[in-house]
Amino acid sequence: MSDSQDSHHDGFTHLDRSGAARMVDVSGKEVTTRTATATGVVFLTPETIEALRHGDVPKGDALAVARIAGIQAAKRTPDLVPLCHPIAIHGADVTLTVDDERGGVAITATTRTADRTGVEMEALTCVMAAALALVDMVKALDPEAVVSEVRVEEKTGGKTGYWHRSA
Amino acid sequence: MSDSQDSHHDGFTHLDRSGAARMVDVSGKEVTTRTATATGVVFLTPETIEALRHGDVPKGDALAVARIAGIQAAKRTPDLVPLCHPIAIHGADVTLTVDDERGGVAITATTRTADRTGVEMEALTCVMAAALALVDMVKALDPEAVVSEVRVEEKTGGKTGYWHRSA
Amino acid sequence: MSDSQDSHHDGFTHLDRSGAARMVDVSGKEVTTRTATATGVVFLTPETIEALRHGDVPKGDALAVARIAGIQAAKRTPDLVPLCHPIAIHGADVTLTVDDERGGVAITATTRTADRTGVEMEALTCVMAAALALVDMVKALDPEAVVSEVRVEEKTGGKTGYWHRSA
Amino acid sequence: MSDSQDSHHDGFTHLDRSGAARMVDVSGKEVTTRTATATGVVFLTPETIEALRHGDVPKGDALAVARIAGIQAAKRTPDLVPLCHPIAIHGADVTLTVDDERGGVAITATTRTADRTGVEMEALTCVMAAALALVDMVKALDPEAVVSEVRVEEKTGGKTGYWHRSA
Amino acid sequence: MSDSQDSHHDGFTHLDRSGAARMVDVSGKEVTTRTATATGVVFLTPETIEALRHGDVPKGDALAVARIAGIQAAKRTPDLVPLCHPIAIHGADVTLTVDDERGGVAITATTRTADRTGVEMEALTCVMAAALALVDMVKALDPEAVVSEVRVEEKTGGKTGYWHRSA
Amino acid sequence: MSDSQDSHHDGFTHLDRSGAARMVDVSGKEVTTRTATATGVVFLTPETIEALRHGDVPKGDALAVARIAGIQAAKRTPDLVPLCHPIAIHGADVTLTVDDERGGVAITATTRTADRTGVEMEALTCVMAAALALVDMVKALDPEAVVSEVRVEEKTGGKTGYWHRSA
Repeated sequence: MSDSQDSHHDGFTHLDRSGAARMVDVSGKEVTTRTATATGVVFLTPETIEALRHGDVPKGDALAVARIAGIQAAKRTPDLVPLCHPIAIHGADVTLTVDDERGGVAITATTRTADRTGVEMEALTCVMAAALALVDMVKALDPEAVVSEVRVEEKTGGKTGYWHRSA
Repeated sequence: MSDSQDSHHDGFTHLDRSGAARMVDVSGKEVTTRTATATGVVFLTPETIEALRHGDVPKGDALAVARIAGIQAAKRTPDLVPLCHPIAIHGADVTLTVDDERGGVAITATTRTADRTGVEMEALTCVMAAALALVDMVKALDPEAVVSEVRVEEKTGGKTGYWHRSA
Repeated sequence: MSDSQDSHHDGFTHLDRSGAARMVDVSGKEVTTRTATATGVVFLTPETIEALRHGDVPKGDALAVARIAGIQAAKRTPDLVPLCHPIAIHGADVTLTVDDERGGVAITATTRTADRTGVEMEALTCVMAAALALVDMVKALDPEAVVSEVRVEEKTGGKTGYWHRSA
Repeated sequence: MSDSQDSHHDGFTHLDRSGAARMVDVSGKEVTTRTATATGVVFLTPETIEALRHGDVPKGDALAVARIAGIQAAKRTPDLVPLCHPIAIHGADVTLTVDDERGGVAITATTRTADRTGVEMEALTCVMAAALALVDMVKALDPEAVVSEVRVEEKTGGKTGYWHRSA
Repeated sequence: MSDSQDSHHDGFTHLDRSGAARMVDVSGKEVTTRTATATGVVFLTPETIEALRHGDVPKGDALAVARIAGIQAAKRTPDLVPLCHPIAIHGADVTLTVDDERGGVAITATTRTADRTGVEMEALTCVMAAALALVDMVKALDPEAVVSEVRVEEKTGGKTGYWHRSA
Repeated sequence: MSDSQDSHHDGFTHLDRSGAARMVDVSGKEVTTRTATATGVVFLTPETIEALRHGDVPKGDALAVARIAGIQAAKRTPDLVPLCHPIAIHGADVTLTVDDERGGVAITATTRTADRTGVEMEALTCVMAAALALVDMVKALDPEAVVSEVRVEEKTGGKTGYWHRSA
């Protein structure tokens, strides 16, 4: 990384050479159908899980709120992720299911587009916002909720075609 | 939970009784100084960690972008979390540090306000958006990055005073 | 209105005299608890009302989506209404109930704040956004849905104190 | 609707079966030119109508503010309507005209796109935001203003082609 | 600046020491009435100035659009300026006047608050957004428009009290 | 301009004839690759320039913050500029370089799209927001910073093809 170290000697240049954030040009990429699926989990106490299961959360229907928060955040990904391209999301769904074995709510989001870049950041944002909203709904009952294992599971479309994580 | 179960029989009523999401009234709560600290981690490959350490990420200065994304998202928490109150954040900082032992970047965010509700959702949102932005910056190098253990560590202020998680 | 007519003769001055939109200064107003209630109705076909009642709307839980849309829009009122002051909403709830007699869904929203201006625009925005979201959810079933009678019902707090509409 | 009633017995499943809001996939739909026209009316007192006619509204040029609010809101439709697709609006205009017979201001909005879904929600949002902004501009003069009859009038493009409301 | 130079040797530390952007804590600052005034100018061709003066701009009422754009942007300052605190703007006005001598439109914006930090960034944002919107309105007539001399003129309130620029 | 003058006599008509702002229909325009470059300068004191050069700005890495603010604002151009079309930005970069001769920081932004309208407003918004963020970062050191000479330098694509400013 000698290039970057040199740049410390010549004023601001290094800021434009190695450090300059930019939104990569994708105007030459092909418009193809692309999808991405991301998952995550919110770990909760057994009491909170029971409350969710019975619709007993005092602030209201926690899972419906989380789902809608996820879809809305997916649309706002370029606002949240500084170098993400604005993209036309053509479909999004998010499911939240109680997973008694893991002791939490599993979240899966799939986003779809017919555009020039992938939608994995949109799927991740969807999962994260759904998780955040769920934590908000239950935080009076469960202040120690933890969001974990948020990650891309698979992608389709674009130059790469089908991709899925190795583990 | 008999009340809610009954409500399944009488049309829409249950939607307004047990399921109706609402933004809880906090206008009677006291204006006090409140803080919250949340943490999280982004697990990355050793190669990605090296690239971050040397400023070699092709899209630009990943940690600076993540930090700014975190602070900006903290301000937009009420937009992202449907039932969160709009709140005047009076201070926010977020640090990202490479943690070689855990194999990732540890994120810590602290938010402060002098207002009527706590700022733990703002701290969590800050961590999550910083994590998302970091994943976006390195995703070409590391498509299997995982965001985990996002959680509130401690809070001060309000009626509860000092709170920290048990583990 | 001779003042304004004169202004047509002197260039742009009239734009700064009679036509200049501005956000009125409220910094000297007192911080008091204020509430506002607004209502409205979405007229629908009997078939759509049946579908709502039975949760049969293909796009999902229409009333939950409408309710959340209303609360989120209430928070974004200053973004939508150009001369509205940004305000800290401290509480918001919105109810949607099927009204068979009127042939539609009645919407009532109440917003609360402890701030320097009233929250009737926030209550109206909440009703309108809930209505819009409801129309979106059912538009495949009911393309002729109509939103009507959106209006402020009552207000409390501020210099005026209690106000309710005359009819 | 036995399916939904059954779902009350099996935990969260029903939330993912009948209640799960999702943004419908439109990536396979054709890109065609589409337009939509929506209308609405704001009922006002004769005194307020006179003030509008003479540009005497204390907060400024009410009709210009309303028109701009409408256009800006049309662009933000996917932010306001949770399951609306983000769409590239390629044209929008909104007219406000005093209608002495009805005793109010009639609003008509037309939106256009060359994209994969219709723009009737954008036209409705435009009308509603223009109406809201108008109410805000005159509310000191006319606290009992009512927004009514907001509805889609006609649509062109897409698979359906030309559609207009029956009455 | 030896401290910062050292930091280049010890991994990420410097990112948290010298480079870490943060939103400074203002929760301990006093709530006082604060104002700020900023100005700027948009240089235009004489033909464009004539068109503005006569309301002949094809896209519509350019000065009204610019004024509203300025006020709306002032409210969105914390969204645009990453480390700006969200602040309750309690008043904003912006005037645009043709200045034949300078060959352009002079813009002056004043913002007011009763809050914990100054509003000079809000006044500057207001001027800049009004200028941008004006350029957009006339760009078909005047593609070489230039925005210049955007600066804070004076401030009141807070610990500093009255401040005005030296030149 | 007799048409507009006449309109002053016939009530609201003129508002719909000469004054009615509208988003021009571009749905018939061709999708082509388009770019725009805009520039601007922030004049600063020599002390501030030294602080920037050495990374000594107390609020953090001013140039990184400015760059990210610029890119994010470019994506939000249609939110800020009322009659701008929402557009898919497919690339954006912004450079900030110290210009000792002019006594300030020179900003250059280039935006790219494959869409139906030009991106010069996006490039200008990028420059302005980067300038605003830079002023915010240094305002404690340099309250008299001035943003000037913000203008479009060149454009490519669309019906016009290559265009550059005359001076």
